[in-house]
Amino acid sequence: MANDKEFVKEVTPQAVDFSQWYLDVVLKAELMDYAPVKGCMAIRPYGYAIWENIQQLLGGRIKATGHKNAYFPLFIPQSLLQKEAEHVEGFAPEVALVTRGGGEELAEKLVVRPTSEAIICSMYAKWIQSWRDLPLLINQWCNVVRWEKNTRPFLRTSEFLWQEGHTVHATEDEAEAETLQMLGVYQDFVENELAIPVVAGRKTEKEKFAGALRTYSIEALMSDGRALQAGTSHNLGQHFARVFEIQFQDKDDELKYAWQTSWGVSTRLIGALIMVHGDDRGLKMPPRVAPVQVVLVPILMKKKKEEVLNKARELAARFNGKLRLELDDREGYSPGWKFNEWEMKGVPLRLEIGPRDLENGGVTAVRRDTGEKSFVAEGDLMQQLPLILQDIQENLFEQARQFRQENTRHAEDFDNFRNIISEKRGFVLAHWCGDAACEEKIKEQTKATIRCLPLKELDGVEGPCICCYKGRGKKAYFARAY
Amino acid sequence: MANDKEFVKEVTPQAVDFSQWYLDVVLKAELMDYAPVKGCMAIRPYGYAIWENIQQLLGGRIKATGHKNAYFPLFIPQSLLQKEAEHVEGFAPEVALVTRGGGEELAEKLVVRPTSEAIICSMYAKWIQSWRDLPLLINQWCNVVRWEKNTRPFLRTSEFLWQEGHTVHATEDEAEAETLQMLGVYQDFVENELAIPVVAGRKTEKEKFAGALRTYSIEALMSDGRALQAGTSHNLGQHFARVFEIQFQDKDDELKYAWQTSWGVSTRLIGALIMVHGDDRGLKMPPRVAPVQVVLVPILMKKKKEEVLNKARELAARFNGKLRLELDDREGYSPGWKFNEWEMKGVPLRLEIGPRDLENGGVTAVRRDTGEKSFVAEGDLMQQLPLILQDIQENLFEQARQFRQENTRHAEDFDNFRNIISEKRGFVLAHWCGDAACEEKIKEQTKATIRCLPLKELDGVEGPCICCYKGRGKKAYFARAY
Repeated sequence: MANDKEFVKEVTPQAVDFSQWYLDVVLKAELMDYAPVKGCMAIRPYGYAIWENIQQLLGGRIKATGHKNAYFPLFIPQSLLQKEAEHVEGFAPEVALVTRGGGEELAEKLVVRPTSEAIICSMYAKWIQSWRDLPLLINQWCNVVRWEKNTRPFLRTSEFLWQEGHTVHATEDEAEAETLQMLGVYQDFVENELAIPVVAGRKTEKEKFAGALRTYSIEALMSDGRALQAGTSHNLGQHFARVFEIQFQDKDDELKYAWQTSWGVSTRLIGALIMVHGDDRGLKMPPRVAPVQVVLVPILMKKKKEEVLNKARELAARFNGKLRLELDDREGYSPGWKFNEWEMKGVPLRLEIGPRDLENGGVTAVRRDTGEKSFVAEGDLMQQLPLILQDIQENLFEQARQFRQENTRHAEDFDNFRNIISEKRGFVLAHWCGDAACEEKIKEQTKATIRCLPLKELDGVEGPCICCYKGRGKKAYFARAY
Repeated sequence: MANDKEFVKEVTPQAVDFSQWYLDVVLKAELMDYAPVKGCMAIRPYGYAIWENIQQLLGGRIKATGHKNAYFPLFIPQSLLQKEAEHVEGFAPEVALVTRGGGEELAEKLVVRPTSEAIICSMYAKWIQSWRDLPLLINQWCNVVRWEKNTRPFLRTSEFLWQEGHTVHATEDEAEAETLQMLGVYQDFVENELAIPVVAGRKTEKEKFAGALRTYSIEALMSDGRALQAGTSHNLGQHFARVFEIQFQDKDDELKYAWQTSWGVSTRLIGALIMVHGDDRGLKMPPRVAPVQVVLVPILMKKKKEEVLNKARELAARFNGKLRLELDDREGYSPGWKFNEWEMKGVPLRLEIGPRDLENGGVTAVRRDTGEKSFVAEGDLMQQLPLILQDIQENLFEQARQFRQENTRHAEDFDNFRNIISEKRGFVLAHWCGDAACEEKIKEQTKATIRCLPLKELDGVEGPCICCYKGRGKKAYFARAY
């Protein structure tokens, strides 16, 4: 029989080395494994099930806001990527190039998509003629490739999965409204489904998407105090429309360039889930995206073995299709080993049923988030389980919110700023004049970057820049980031 | 206002040129468009919605049979693909190669996956240790690339979308049972959801998958009399397990090589849908996979314009979430233009509501499959629409089944065989001795290939080979194929 302690002992405690803890957990919980190609990963069924739940819950919101899914080619002719000057400058250094196909050298090298603006705009130019064709609201779920030097499972991999929305509008106002609408969709999704509180804001010129007019993002705080960009929404202005000639005949019969947006979230969100909620015993999955919401473990002893097993199977069958409940009736593993494994995988609620529970007519329920144990009578299960899961969901969000609150600090001067960043990390709110030179200097000296200029301005008042003290500006969110 | 006849006039009649009809329809129905990379296509929202319905209906069956989804890398190191000799021989000529990444020449070239046996087996070798790890039942939905010289939308494209199942078993019998089970899942799905009757059978040695022990397929007959392979299921034997060293400690403590299967269907199925059901007016979508099952077109005249529009909106709202119903209240398009457009897109049922329908308290329903018109009272809609859709689904299947029956012929001698293939096409059932030389000779002289050796042997009796007359064998299905 496998050793009870095997799971936990192989995981480095967070306090010892958070980064190693992360790498240990993603492997141990069977979220992924390293592939034979550098920087690429195989997403294992347990990890992929999280992505499928994300696809379903976010995908539903994307459709509900009027977008339709489509699929554009993986390969982009190099000349297309080069059309928009800022775009190519941003992406050219990290592309993978196909140079041979069918045994022959290709006349034009093909870029494996790092993002799809170029290929999609080349199609949109054909599809859009008139104001009647607008707005065009399309999304795609796909793989993308960015040749990364330093990779980390889920957070930064050479190939990753994402969704990318690409919309076209008749006016600047509509494009800006769409950009902000999708930022709001992301915030709603990440907070309510992933139980991760985020700050929504605008990126600086330096940090914006290559080719965008304006980039907005949602920013989350990991439990090691580093920030993670969890989703971005770009107002592309007419930058791409002008180089790809996306024009439409407007109602006034004039030929006009269209306004565009693009927005995306990726498998990176799985990294955020791990780092926001996890602890030394492994993952803690928010129930709404948990691949397994409830695990039922029969405690099999000689006494009443068959009755316990039968009752466990009966209960599992009862919840089939109602909850994502898994019965763990594997033989050859002790209950302790199973508990550790499911805790590592972050299953929100464990139900145990042994001879004594059977006698008492119920099960013992153990919460992953609090460790709290309670007895639930069989007749109450159908009503109680969804309530407990809902409570776990809210508690995980509340814990993350409190952590973020405790780790969001206002810096009054540069020394104070530097000390907070180096000693405590977390978010630092500080006035910034808007000058890229100050932004760069702060980054050089503290490794902190401006995460965003918050939409809900906490301190709407302008003050002297934390760096130069000369210029004035509103407060920005700073942090060291993944 | 757009011209009523625009849609139909731009489509070549099937009788004039079936191949051109196909190309016209895929563009005109907005299923796809040609991308700037040769042989690649953009799948437009209407086409992709069919694929999403396929994913949902087939994906449900794949999960119900115990398989879990995962995701493996797009890139395969060239050395991995080369491990299995037959496999590399089959796929090497048509691969796309990434030779540069991040601005540098790669030490080892990467193959863009043409299929994932090699990369998946390299992971399975790490994951499988014991009989407890078996069976391993994994599926993935992804894009694959095969550098094709002659491409055709959906049927043969350099990049396409598919699902590929990859399973590992402890015994040969289990692997064979899995292979046949998934063939059965495909047949059930294609017949009941896509309304396409198929023949299930075994491929010859010549036609089997590169690296497989045995390949099974389902074969459909297009309305031009050519066959299309609609899905394949492979028993891989221990071929891959031996070269990738997928071994497990069995219950008897012996270390054994595992047995594997793989199986897949692709966006090719969309091509089959078009060619089996379509006519000169466009697509005919089987209701179960139709992106739009019912279109509601208000007939707006001066008289009672607002009342008609309000009633149409009320009805559309009533079916929201119950049927995939679309209200076409666009202005600037005549009813005739709309009718043509929705017929081109193959929407199974059109509902018209005009001033007279309003007076009569109902709508006019027009079936895409038969053209039949009927009046449905408002109060009967909720009950009637699902029944009509079900009837359309069954009728499409029945029409295709009859067509196949009429176009499946028994050949008595080689002249007869050649005449049928050249004059009538369709399926030809003929005895075959099992010799690859005869198979090759038949192909050279008639362009017909053996589609499969049917599982349900229609004529279980052996007879003299249609080619050599010397050897004897059971009947095989022959056809010219896509």
